[in-house]
Amino acid sequence: MTENGAIGVFDSGIGGLTVLRELLTRLPGESFIYFGDTARVPYGTKSAETVLKFSRENVTFLLDQDVKFIVVACNTASAEAVPRLQREFRIPIVGVIEPGVRAAVRMSKTSKIGVIGTAGTIRSEAYQRGIKEISPQAEVTARACPLFVPLVEEGWVDTPTTEMVAESYLGEYRKREIDVLVLGCTHYPLLRDVIGRVVGERVALVDSAVETASEVQRVLEGEHLRNHGGEVDFTIYLSDIAPDFKQVGERILGREIPQVRLRLV
Amino acid sequence: MTENGAIGVFDSGIGGLTVLRELLTRLPGESFIYFGDTARVPYGTKSAETVLKFSRENVTFLLDQDVKFIVVACNTASAEAVPRLQREFRIPIVGVIEPGVRAAVRMSKTSKIGVIGTAGTIRSEAYQRGIKEISPQAEVTARACPLFVPLVEEGWVDTPTTEMVAESYLGEYRKREIDVLVLGCTHYPLLRDVIGRVVGERVALVDSAVETASEVQRVLEGEHLRNHGGEVDFTIYLSDIAPDFKQVGERILGREIPQVRLRLV
Repeated sequence: MTENGAIGVFDSGIGGLTVLRELLTRLPGESFIYFGDTARVPYGTKSAETVLKFSRENVTFLLDQDVKFIVVACNTASAEAVPRLQREFRIPIVGVIEPGVRAAVRMSKTSKIGVIGTAGTIRSEAYQRGIKEISPQAEVTARACPLFVPLVEEGWVDTPTTEMVAESYLGEYRKREIDVLVLGCTHYPLLRDVIGRVVGERVALVDSAVETASEVQRVLEGEHLRNHGGEVDFTIYLSDIAPDFKQVGERILGREIPQVRLRLV
Repeated sequence: MTENGAIGVFDSGIGGLTVLRELLTRLPGESFIYFGDTARVPYGTKSAETVLKFSRENVTFLLDQDVKFIVVACNTASAEAVPRLQREFRIPIVGVIEPGVRAAVRMSKTSKIGVIGTAGTIRSEAYQRGIKEISPQAEVTARACPLFVPLVEEGWVDTPTTEMVAESYLGEYRKREIDVLVLGCTHYPLLRDVIGRVVGERVALVDSAVETASEVQRVLEGEHLRNHGGEVDFTIYLSDIAPDFKQVGERILGREIPQVRLRLV
């Protein structure tokens, strides 16, 4: 593990490319190795034990690639596994929950905060507990939105159906008068327009990809792990390569993906 | 492998319990071992190579339980792996595609047949090819419906949202004047009412669970593999046990599930 090693990023699938995108923009002098567990995606509907088991395997794979730092880009894995992984492994590990929690508390004036995510993320109560820890008076309303991920993967990001689903899940937030909503899943920022219309324009949306990239930069500097010169690049490993991956992945990442490697699980 | 062994059934998750339900009703003198690969569900969005790899592992697990016969209750695994598994293993293996194909051809008078399923099942063209083989003049229109599984798993089986999604996917079938629609995914029969309303009451719906149970009975008798006396029971193994499994599983199976065993993958 040296300061010129790559930064490892893992996610249950390809949604975490939103985090990689922010990291590439913010840290152009670093190399990255991304692993998306597309053979076993999604994690959000599975038990905490299974999510922990898969997350441990993903960390071990990234360590085998000599990474210097690990970013858990998946909200479910961050919620259900990161505290445990941080105790078990010596490498610095950053998840997406803490940066999202801090941003939500910083941005809220009324302390009425909404949190949305997968069934696993919401059931873990990681966001709810995290917000209460630094802002005990906060009123947090959490809601699982299991259909948002398949809607994004179907490409229906702004259709009447998506609007109707969003209304079912989020309509009640208008009554609760929240002023911040945490988008607690990497896919949700792609539904930003619909979500924003349903909850109202006065509600600020927290995008964990942006917040996490900023946290990674801070920790890298604090631990003196910034890369000093040398070649930089990024490599993407997936456990299943779907026929349309390159097209979908490049849309999410916002740049060309030169090569994808298969890592069987 | 003896005639008093159990019948093994596997599926990518718990949708295949609809097939087990039919088998338990139709073959009350048989024992069953069901394996649902809930840690890696769904298969329908993944590549053919991955579906074949997982399917081989599932067959091997069932063989370790000394089953006498294997039913592949998952449409995606049936489409992408069954012909290969039948060549590789000596045990009789029945998938859900062939029974569905035969029922569709038998039931259609106009030879205009619709087929719906996951992205993997439709991409494999297993139904389309199977129908054309026994009815070359048939006109088959196939459509992937990726949102149907998450809608069922969310419990939204008959909501305005489900109706709207069904209209998007299936509305065009009204113009094509099909008279049979194959429900090529174990979850879809749970949406039978909505699907029936959208395509029109003159369209007959083929439920692969029912057709497959009938095929299994025929093959068991043909190969002299019927159980003759002795205790019978059924055992369910899952690779991930979600907190709400018992409740959801019993709703699909239509009977009590005494015990669920974990089989890590």
